[in-house]
Amino acid sequence: VGGLITERTARALLSRVAEPGDPRVSRLVREEGGLGAVGAIRSAVADDASWARRYAARLAGADPEADLARVRAVGGRLLVPGDLEWPSQLADLGDAVPWALWVRGTVDLRLTALRSVAVVGARAATDYGTHVASVLGAELASHGWAVVSGGAFGIDAAAHTGALAARGVTVAVLACGVDVAYPPRHEALFARIAADGALVSEVAPGAAPHRTRFLVRNRVIAALTRGTVVVEAALRSGALATARDAERLGRPLMVVPGPVTSALSAGVHRELRAGALAVTSATEVIEAVGELGADLAPRVDGPSRPRDQLDPLSRRVLDGVPARRAATLESVARTAGVTPAEASAALGLLELAGFVRSGPDGWCLARTPGAPG
Amino acid sequence: VGGLITERTARALLSRVAEPGDPRVSRLVREEGGLGAVGAIRSAVADDASWARRYAARLAGADPEADLARVRAVGGRLLVPGDLEWPSQLADLGDAVPWALWVRGTVDLRLTALRSVAVVGARAATDYGTHVASVLGAELASHGWAVVSGGAFGIDAAAHTGALAARGVTVAVLACGVDVAYPPRHEALFARIAADGALVSEVAPGAAPHRTRFLVRNRVIAALTRGTVVVEAALRSGALATARDAERLGRPLMVVPGPVTSALSAGVHRELRAGALAVTSATEVIEAVGELGADLAPRVDGPSRPRDQLDPLSRRVLDGVPARRAATLESVARTAGVTPAEASAALGLLELAGFVRSGPDGWCLARTPGAPG
Repeated sequence: VGGLITERTARALLSRVAEPGDPRVSRLVREEGGLGAVGAIRSAVADDASWARRYAARLAGADPEADLARVRAVGGRLLVPGDLEWPSQLADLGDAVPWALWVRGTVDLRLTALRSVAVVGARAATDYGTHVASVLGAELASHGWAVVSGGAFGIDAAAHTGALAARGVTVAVLACGVDVAYPPRHEALFARIAADGALVSEVAPGAAPHRTRFLVRNRVIAALTRGTVVVEAALRSGALATARDAERLGRPLMVVPGPVTSALSAGVHRELRAGALAVTSATEVIEAVGELGADLAPRVDGPSRPRDQLDPLSRRVLDGVPARRAATLESVARTAGVTPAEASAALGLLELAGFVRSGPDGWCLARTPGAPG
Repeated sequence: VGGLITERTARALLSRVAEPGDPRVSRLVREEGGLGAVGAIRSAVADDASWARRYAARLAGADPEADLARVRAVGGRLLVPGDLEWPSQLADLGDAVPWALWVRGTVDLRLTALRSVAVVGARAATDYGTHVASVLGAELASHGWAVVSGGAFGIDAAAHTGALAARGVTVAVLACGVDVAYPPRHEALFARIAADGALVSEVAPGAAPHRTRFLVRNRVIAALTRGTVVVEAALRSGALATARDAERLGRPLMVVPGPVTSALSAGVHRELRAGALAVTSATEVIEAVGELGADLAPRVDGPSRPRDQLDPLSRRVLDGVPARRAATLESVARTAGVTPAEASAALGLLELAGFVRSGPDGWCLARTPGAPG
């Protein structure tokens, strides 16, 4: 691969050449962008610089245009920072932010992520665990929350399946290419997720999952979501790595209690004793993550419409509506610095769009806009 | 009943005449002692004062000497404040402190209470709950902790039985007289508890349990113990009243998680979300209550020997031993203000008595003296 390429193609190439989270490539991308990073790696490989030798073989075989075509063929795309669909909260990962995300699915990843919860747990789950994960997935989905998990056996699969059964949105963040079914028995599940939600990966199409890819993948699950729920986890479960990532990112870490006689709940109870929040229902999960998400992730019957897409006057009026109590039209207008007539017109539209609601005492923010009930 | 009586007899009479926790009688006892309270009630009844009418019938029929004889006949006694065996921490109940406690059993209630944990929960417990309560009771007992509960069906009975099976000490605080088997099916259990531990009640021998007596009884369970563990509780379980009492007294409130699909764990999980500590084993319970109890409730192989029974020199040296780290002989002597020779002699005896232990770095307090392991 030589000659002129775009920033997107450069990042597609990096996702093929370097492992996700590779510190040297991350720094190059941070300092010089994807194109600059590709140029630096190419030069260093040409000069046979010792640090670049590890990239040489993969660089020689890389064909980002072919990868991009390949993902398009399965209904996918490559997202890079700056895209409207790039999930802005991934920036919380700091130096470990992905360079790009391969996405295969039908939903807008950014809007989906704004109103999403991770539900993760043990592969060797018990009947209790898979039952709880499936009900939780279904209830979160039916309240308009996307369920993000890792596509693995056990808790992950139950959470995805529950969300799909409730005709909701679910996202699987994979450690392999978005066109690879791993585990193979999940081929049909992944097809359903791609149809109603999204498969997401940092690694290029066709790439196989490695042990380390599962670990670095977990930080994406934690960063994409408003909070992480661990349903079942033995003391050394990989699901606890996602829990650590969520805590590191300042996202709420929630756990579902289980029998103290179950080894599959021992990891969960240790988290509980270390300060994680116990949750027993989707309502409690939403209560924990909803305050963060309420005015960031409005969701109406149609597609979501984030606040920053509002016109300036509406946004100003929206900012004048208190979050926790109702305010009169006059009070909102005064706070927003607009006339009562302007406030009245804007509030009517904001109500239709699910941002605010009116009650006997005036106007307040719709806490979980679009949620049934 | 007329003529001269002792303070003890007066309190025996009060326990027959008034309900436990009766606010007016509590105030009279607080202000004038048991004898003064009896005198005041007798005068008021004689004068037909309206406030005293409720006591008249019971006063006429009361025979405290007969009650004392009756409890002696079943191997029991009446404890009043000031007795060596009176559990000093009951003072934490403030205005609601019992006037007296009827005790039937073989252990010293004060020393037992100093190293005790309440294990309470639902009567309609599940197999999971009774299993956990029984194992918890046995493990606490085998670590030298007394298990206090309410003698009811379900969790209470499992906790008592577990402690007895481990040849430990268990205490049932009853809402009826200590010679009454309620529930009747627990007659054999109560006999075993009286043989190896103690039955305790605020109400006089022969008294039947009332609904309100169960509620006021709960505060005694919470106050007698270093902390309360709730094993299973539905949302409206009476066990949660004991939890409230424990919190009010500043005692650790612990709960055992269970399946979120179980209604019998719903109350437990609500407590958990409100700040109770999750515990999954006796070790975790002891960790939560042990710091408080360590140097208050030394327990050796023989009978316990509380700190205030030590000779002044030993007590001074003991006060010079740090709780959390080891100190050299010289350091202990300096802190205690005694000679190294005096410190050395005292430390040897304190070690034999289980108060301190020596390690490679010097001397430190024995955290759970006398506990196996």
